[in-house]
Amino acid sequence: MAEFYLGADTGGTGVKYVITDGDGNVVFQGEVPTDPRSGKKTLARLAMEVAEKIAPPTDSDRPVFSNLAAVGMACAGIVDPVSGHLGRSPNLPGWEDTNLKSMLANEFSEKPVVVVNDVNGALYGEYRFGSGRGCEHLVMIALGTGVGGGVLLNGHLLVGSHNGAAEIGHMVLDPSGPICTCGGVGCLEAWAGSVAIVKQARLLARVELKDTALSQLVTEKGEELTTRDLSLLARKGDAASLALFAEVGHRLGYAVGNLVNILDPDKVIIGGGVALAGELILGPCRAMVPQLVLADEAKNVPVVPAELGPLASAVGAACLARESLAIS
Amino acid sequence: MAEFYLGADTGGTGVKYVITDGDGNVVFQGEVPTDPRSGKKTLARLAMEVAEKIAPPTDSDRPVFSNLAAVGMACAGIVDPVSGHLGRSPNLPGWEDTNLKSMLANEFSEKPVVVVNDVNGALYGEYRFGSGRGCEHLVMIALGTGVGGGVLLNGHLLVGSHNGAAEIGHMVLDPSGPICTCGGVGCLEAWAGSVAIVKQARLLARVELKDTALSQLVTEKGEELTTRDLSLLARKGDAASLALFAEVGHRLGYAVGNLVNILDPDKVIIGGGVALAGELILGPCRAMVPQLVLADEAKNVPVVPAELGPLASAVGAACLARESLAIS
Repeated sequence: MAEFYLGADTGGTGVKYVITDGDGNVVFQGEVPTDPRSGKKTLARLAMEVAEKIAPPTDSDRPVFSNLAAVGMACAGIVDPVSGHLGRSPNLPGWEDTNLKSMLANEFSEKPVVVVNDVNGALYGEYRFGSGRGCEHLVMIALGTGVGGGVLLNGHLLVGSHNGAAEIGHMVLDPSGPICTCGGVGCLEAWAGSVAIVKQARLLARVELKDTALSQLVTEKGEELTTRDLSLLARKGDAASLALFAEVGHRLGYAVGNLVNILDPDKVIIGGGVALAGELILGPCRAMVPQLVLADEAKNVPVVPAELGPLASAVGAACLARESLAIS
Repeated sequence: MAEFYLGADTGGTGVKYVITDGDGNVVFQGEVPTDPRSGKKTLARLAMEVAEKIAPPTDSDRPVFSNLAAVGMACAGIVDPVSGHLGRSPNLPGWEDTNLKSMLANEFSEKPVVVVNDVNGALYGEYRFGSGRGCEHLVMIALGTGVGGGVLLNGHLLVGSHNGAAEIGHMVLDPSGPICTCGGVGCLEAWAGSVAIVKQARLLARVELKDTALSQLVTEKGEELTTRDLSLLARKGDAASLALFAEVGHRLGYAVGNLVNILDPDKVIIGGGVALAGELILGPCRAMVPQLVLADEAKNVPVVPAELGPLASAVGAACLARESLAIS
């Protein structure tokens, strides 16, 4: 009997999922739209689509999961992996303060369920199949709209005493820095999240850099401006855009330096959409780290890009689901 | 047969030690002077003194350790608990790059030996017998001449991949802050170590606060000025001294906020000589933390003073020695 594992990653607009075999190979992948106001509706739709892919022929009009061994779900927000409770989750207002684990068990015929924060899921995916393979101590920084984090120690994700660990985006790097979406000042996210980078680009274009390639781009793209647009301009050699990403890398370097002084991991993995700017950010970041790390042997910690791309969290969730069966 | 455990803590001027019974009760304590240029001489002297206290009557002219079950030693610097190697250790120049574990085994008749960084030892002592009792996830910040740190997760000390973890004193809190002894800028230690605090007091007295109680104290004490002197003045209500400690607490609050956002521990323990200023520092520190921590449940993490005082590291080292036998 074939055994499948579902790994899903719930974001504000869609639920990306992978179905893997018992070795973690992805045999199907897909996406269903998220209803940000209703976890139940979203998960019912996911269950139906998964059943269509893996269910054996049957007369039942309800989804059948006899082939499915376990379900893992990654979700943005404060997730309690033990109880399954989802707390604060800014992009999923209708999902907050619900029990993800029991909702999933309900839709998937009471199969074993594992839930995890989305960046923790991505880190676990990178640990098993990506740029963290072979390491047991890892830090991940995910540069997306905001900035998320994950910490893996001795092969286990750190969740903390109140599921509040690894909120790396809200490490304060400079108390006189920019205001952050969290209400704080000078958090990493206030420099390195895409919202912050685009805001800074617009500010530069309006105030200091009128009539430049940057200001033309800002005007042309308007509300649609992305960090990808800015990175393309930087790659053409535009000095202002290069400086913009260098500043992101510089501040990220302070964050990495602090994290290495606290955790001394084997590697630091930089993921998320903003990280697609690659060396524009990683170069300046790597230049800072050895200056900031105290222990000689820890100064040259590799700071590497994530490898798995947008499916990392779903892949990690599937791994965690599979491994939860081996443990229990 | 009585079984004793030795726990020692090697500082720049003396080796404090405790001898405990099998339940961790301290039955003897003492101190031998440190020879900062020679670990071997210092440890031979320690061995002789310990033997005098616990050895059964014997004809041997060498120390006898038949009553001693295991030895634990805490030491300032970068300590590898597995190999026993002592790396960078600024106050013990003649001990650097030696193997503490084999030196100790040599002096103590090849008894089992455990070595640990001094702040990690203190944290372990607080975990077992002090203000961390009953918690499994702890952070300790030791405000001494410099600022050290310790992290305990699931009851285990975090040492990191290169023994470089928990260097909390060198977390950068503000890139435009004061210069630190490590060569960096704006590290926690550059505000909260006693060297930094005394330096700041002298600067205030010389530049902004001539003819005040603070400047009188600075002049009167000269090179002998300590943070204890300053805290006594603050307790009398001197505004400048109060502000000095409030600034230390304020910056410490940023450090605690960052650490809680990364590690989400059960408690944060503040130890070291500077922490004897108590609420002068802890009050302003606690006022900052909830503003900086993202996860609601983690905002009210207790920030508490250490309880064990100057023997904490020796007590912790004895605990680790005792527990190492139970594990092996």
